[in-house]
Amino acid sequence: MSTIFTKIINGEIPSYKIAEDDDFYAFLDINPNAVGHTLCVPKKEVDRLLDLDEETYQGLMAFSRKVGLAIEAAISCNRVGMTVIGLEVPHVHVHLIPLNGMQDATFQHKVSLSPEEFTAIAEKIRAKIQ
Amino acid sequence: MSTIFTKIINGEIPSYKIAEDDDFYAFLDINPNAVGHTLCVPKKEVDRLLDLDEETYQGLMAFSRKVGLAIEAAISCNRVGMTVIGLEVPHVHVHLIPLNGMQDATFQHKVSLSPEEFTAIAEKIRAKIQ
Repeated sequence: MSTIFTKIINGEIPSYKIAEDDDFYAFLDINPNAVGHTLCVPKKEVDRLLDLDEETYQGLMAFSRKVGLAIEAAISCNRVGMTVIGLEVPHVHVHLIPLNGMQDATFQHKVSLSPEEFTAIAEKIRAKIQ
Repeated sequence: MSTIFTKIINGEIPSYKIAEDDDFYAFLDINPNAVGHTLCVPKKEVDRLLDLDEETYQGLMAFSRKVGLAIEAAISCNRVGMTVIGLEVPHVHVHLIPLNGMQDATFQHKVSLSPEEFTAIAEKIRAKIQ
């Protein structure tokens, strides 16, 4: 059975898309730690980060860098943090989180946004993708 | 002035070293979220992850992968998580954290270890570096 992220990549579940190439897909986390919190996912369905083959791992990191720079350019923050946990969805995902304080990095505090806000944030970040 | 991580890399401050090459240095976090929590640092002093030049960024990620695989081989865990925050020390560092539950990823719960325990953990991980 496909993971929820594969369904998002295939368009079976809608997402606020940020970027896509042949191997990777980025979209807004709908339960964000902070405004602009984005997930970067390899299209290949692999559960654990370090089980990715080296080429896909390095490709995911390069893709995450590109998306992270766009987030930093679009969203007011001290810096963009990066986290890979993966205990809930068995499909590798890199969290890119605009950080202004430690509370944005702990996954204990969440921000509630309307569909209109998500749409506007995604557009703002997409416009900064180089 | 040098950051605390530069002092560690230069041996002015002792550390439980895990791995080192020309550009990167890995050592145990002395205030760990979980047993085996390791920091990977570029020798170049740069504050924010996304301010690293692309080559150093990709090198840091490749180095972190190598160290992370050694941690997974040495320490009993569900998987090794990866986090970059950087709000405290202005010198890029990748946290590699053996995860067994979400509490290991939040930086809210810490583990206390003796110098003998740190030494034994470092030896165990070092033995698995490929």
